[in-house]
Amino acid sequence: MARIEDLRKIATRLRIHSLRTTTVAGSGHPTTCLSAADLAACLFFREMRWNPKDPNDPASDEFVLSKGHAAPLLWAVYAEAGVIPLESLLNLRKITSELEGHPTPRMPWVKAATGSLGQGLSVGVGMALAQRLDKSPARTFVLLGDGECAEGQVWEAANSAAYFKLRNLVAVVDVNRLGQSDPTMHQHDLGALARKFRSFGWNAVVVDGHRIAAILAAFKKAGQGGKPTAILARTLKGKGVSFIEDKNGWHGKPLKADELAQAIEEIGCLPDVDSRRFIHKPKPFRKRKRVVALGFPRTPYAEKTATRLAYGNGLLALGRIDPSVVVIDGDVKNSTYADKFFGAFPDRSFQGFIAEQNMVGMGIGLAAKGYLPFIATFAAFLTRAHDQIRMAAYSFSNLKLCGSHVGVSIGEDGPSQMGLEDLAMFRSIPGALVLYPSDAVSAEACVEAAAAHRGLAYIRTTRPATPILYPAKETFAAGGSKVLRKGEGDAATVIAAGITVHEALKAHETLRQEGIGLRVIDAYSVAPLDVETIAREVAQTGGRAVVVEDHYAGGGLGDAVAEALAGKADLAHLCIRELPRSGKPDELMKTYGISADHIIRAVKELVAA
Amino acid sequence: MARIEDLRKIATRLRIHSLRTTTVAGSGHPTTCLSAADLAACLFFREMRWNPKDPNDPASDEFVLSKGHAAPLLWAVYAEAGVIPLESLLNLRKITSELEGHPTPRMPWVKAATGSLGQGLSVGVGMALAQRLDKSPARTFVLLGDGECAEGQVWEAANSAAYFKLRNLVAVVDVNRLGQSDPTMHQHDLGALARKFRSFGWNAVVVDGHRIAAILAAFKKAGQGGKPTAILARTLKGKGVSFIEDKNGWHGKPLKADELAQAIEEIGCLPDVDSRRFIHKPKPFRKRKRVVALGFPRTPYAEKTATRLAYGNGLLALGRIDPSVVVIDGDVKNSTYADKFFGAFPDRSFQGFIAEQNMVGMGIGLAAKGYLPFIATFAAFLTRAHDQIRMAAYSFSNLKLCGSHVGVSIGEDGPSQMGLEDLAMFRSIPGALVLYPSDAVSAEACVEAAAAHRGLAYIRTTRPATPILYPAKETFAAGGSKVLRKGEGDAATVIAAGITVHEALKAHETLRQEGIGLRVIDAYSVAPLDVETIAREVAQTGGRAVVVEDHYAGGGLGDAVAEALAGKADLAHLCIRELPRSGKPDELMKTYGISADHIIRAVKELVAA
Repeated sequence: MARIEDLRKIATRLRIHSLRTTTVAGSGHPTTCLSAADLAACLFFREMRWNPKDPNDPASDEFVLSKGHAAPLLWAVYAEAGVIPLESLLNLRKITSELEGHPTPRMPWVKAATGSLGQGLSVGVGMALAQRLDKSPARTFVLLGDGECAEGQVWEAANSAAYFKLRNLVAVVDVNRLGQSDPTMHQHDLGALARKFRSFGWNAVVVDGHRIAAILAAFKKAGQGGKPTAILARTLKGKGVSFIEDKNGWHGKPLKADELAQAIEEIGCLPDVDSRRFIHKPKPFRKRKRVVALGFPRTPYAEKTATRLAYGNGLLALGRIDPSVVVIDGDVKNSTYADKFFGAFPDRSFQGFIAEQNMVGMGIGLAAKGYLPFIATFAAFLTRAHDQIRMAAYSFSNLKLCGSHVGVSIGEDGPSQMGLEDLAMFRSIPGALVLYPSDAVSAEACVEAAAAHRGLAYIRTTRPATPILYPAKETFAAGGSKVLRKGEGDAATVIAAGITVHEALKAHETLRQEGIGLRVIDAYSVAPLDVETIAREVAQTGGRAVVVEDHYAGGGLGDAVAEALAGKADLAHLCIRELPRSGKPDELMKTYGISADHIIRAVKELVAA
Repeated sequence: MARIEDLRKIATRLRIHSLRTTTVAGSGHPTTCLSAADLAACLFFREMRWNPKDPNDPASDEFVLSKGHAAPLLWAVYAEAGVIPLESLLNLRKITSELEGHPTPRMPWVKAATGSLGQGLSVGVGMALAQRLDKSPARTFVLLGDGECAEGQVWEAANSAAYFKLRNLVAVVDVNRLGQSDPTMHQHDLGALARKFRSFGWNAVVVDGHRIAAILAAFKKAGQGGKPTAILARTLKGKGVSFIEDKNGWHGKPLKADELAQAIEEIGCLPDVDSRRFIHKPKPFRKRKRVVALGFPRTPYAEKTATRLAYGNGLLALGRIDPSVVVIDGDVKNSTYADKFFGAFPDRSFQGFIAEQNMVGMGIGLAAKGYLPFIATFAAFLTRAHDQIRMAAYSFSNLKLCGSHVGVSIGEDGPSQMGLEDLAMFRSIPGALVLYPSDAVSAEACVEAAAAHRGLAYIRTTRPATPILYPAKETFAAGGSKVLRKGEGDAATVIAAGITVHEALKAHETLRQEGIGLRVIDAYSVAPLDVETIAREVAQTGGRAVVVEDHYAGGGLGDAVAEALAGKADLAHLCIRELPRSGKPDELMKTYGISADHIIRAVKELVAA
């Protein structure tokens, strides 16, 4: 077991590595590494139980570096632990290196990308929940900065950790007093932070973050009373180097070569200690093997059914065959129909209350531990977690999101409740699967397609009930589309998705009676888009295309089709072009121009042009 | 002055209106109105000082309904106050009515749209700051629900209200114990909520929210110790109607006709009281008239300059001529260069620390009070406030946002710090002005254009210094573009913006030496896009166009141009198509395909096709 003297030496080594590598890289945040070096040494080389041979050993404690700009410190830890070669540290921030400016899972020991502050504690909540589900004795440690405690998400996470009684979760806050541009709100008033954590249901312990013995003593209090524990460590930014220690103006600045030399002179040379031998290996622990069947039995539908309801049915059926499925709700489960899963699988269901940021962060944590999280709320409120969703992508997270109540078709609740920008949000994420089913059959199939997709997937569901369009066994591949109406000599093609597919079918019927053929495509896979089918069908209808969507003009299906058909088609784009108001769904679809009548008019204009 | 008996009668009237109007509308949230009716009666007809003749009287106290689903209660208040006719309440949620499902400023007494929960307190912080800047004695009241206190933004707002010592801010929390799908986290443990608010630096008073005398007594404690005050009111959802009172499962459900009849039987008929005569008018107060000059003197630039630095210079110059300009920072002002304004105008500068959601909410509040807020952070972190930006649009808010450090061109800090989805986010908002300057001159001009635009405006700035392209007096209108290179027989047109304009110019030069003409457009106004110029120039170059942007594929400039040119051009779209990593700016632009070399290749391919 590492003695205080050993840990002090290790911390010094971590400091020197952090200074050197940022100077070599010419950028980075050395001072924020120096404040946390003693904490990191105590964590990785004494308190934590972990297996440096396997980043995915379920027996190991988990670690999340919420203050992601301290990445050089984390890389130094793994080098000291023998996980990566010491020399590799000098590749920090190079395009060829896994050691990025902020942690991402390109480096396999990182389970969740950080660097957008205030997100790590939510990830930790998810991991600690996963450990509990696994019945694992392992714990989760999250290292935060004091500056990021201004982010509301930290308090959402604190709330939920206390609610779930996560005694296996420890937050270590490196209170170094200085933000990027100014001192932090509470500076070294650690009592203020402790009062906050306690009022949110946590144990809070205040320590000197540079006194090894005090840090180790604080860890002993973790988990008392069955509560999550915050260790609030008073530290100095730039600790150990006189001319940067506790000085404003040194955030995100590497030392110049001569400054580095001076710093090393102050700190002394690399102390001689083999850090690797102080790593505490965990007791072996094996997770239950989960048997996952392929494909779930579909619900038979005859009557009009809302796609959100079918989502709920699909999720329930998926949960029956796949024990790794977990569901998080933001107090809207009776609207998204996630409540069906909650009723059947209470142990795998988590009430996140109205805190969308934390909900997504928890999902990232659960996914990092091998679970398959489905998270649903109103699509409009997923914008609340846009930053977290962005970070989920950088975490290569296997997260499934469902946004219900999309578009003006929700009706009277008004614009604040209408998801009208969600396609733009998800289409901008490289690799995200974006599905938008039009009926209950395709909605259930989309749940299966999302589960099968490795990575971020989004399902867009509709509030009102819509007619059934597909036979029960129809398959819906990611990247596919369905040609629903097709005739020789069709005058134009309409590309629709979700509720507008039904408007397109009405338009088809009316035009048919007038002798005009309208090809109808259900573009249920908005990303990737079925470019080949759409281009072929549009070409067959004289290069005339109408896109119609219950979404704003920018970034949605219309943009996707415009890019796919550039130069190949005359395009009419029907969508919501102004801020809508409350009203009846039909009225709103008519008022804002996405009804069957508008499709008919657009087709006739294209034909006449 | 209203006696307790009068207020009780008014509350009963508010309850009856809320029940009736939601039943007539066939949707809405009556139970959440009933819990807050006594609080609303005490606020509007006793505690608040306000002028029912003028929604913009600067002497009046401000009110924000953070729990926006209680809109029917708010409309009932204004009907009781004589602001709108009583009969108009029956138009609730009709497409022709200002009385929407959730409050929006279509109804002029609403200053900020609500309905996405947890946002109102931030708006209140902004309003209270505005009142302080105005040297007004008026106060700001925010009515919240207990469910929404799970949103982190509430605690961001609580933090900043305490930091700014806003004794003129009062939060009233209607603790009705029931969320939408479940009881709230703390249910009727009001002590838990009080501890939270106190730990965040507030006064907290716990009261019975149905005892008029207790409510009035609580208001007397507001502002004590110079702190903001939270009144935590224990209430019952559906209060006054036996079969819905304190019952789960009644969220967002109007009574059926027979249920309404039964409810009215229990409550009794409309009490006879003229609510209007109990309104407390404020003492007259006039704001200083502000004189705003037009146009600010531009900085002369000769050397390469980062557009973010020019943004800072422009903002400072704008602040000198326009005293209504206020600036909020999220602890990155030395990176966005908002620090120039902070240095010159400390009274109009607000440190929001690392809490982007609250920052935008504060801006909405300040804008609602006639100020012109500019908010800058890394573009990547504006995604943290996507929901708040969305609500700013529904608030018709005159808010100006700047996102710095966009694209892979930031370099080594890595993907978490790269704004690569911001154009998609802002382009999806109808009416938002989206500007993306390529040099320092246009960046300053964009600050002026954003200030001149009435409504939401976004400026996208770049981290590295870029060469100066324009003469000092060049003008840049919203919706415009600049044709930078043009020759007869040009083979293709490249449409670029920001840093890629410089790549396009390099490509032009290389191609020129090979005898190939390349037209270059600086599409600095991404929304509205200069469709006319772009279409014309592209047509003149054989319908061959290349779009190049430092942004993800979905939702950005490429999509905008694709839609504008649909059917009219062959389009090559160069953009970031995968999750990038850390590296040098030039390396990254080359690796991900948006450098001059890629433009040259794309042009040649278009010409050969």
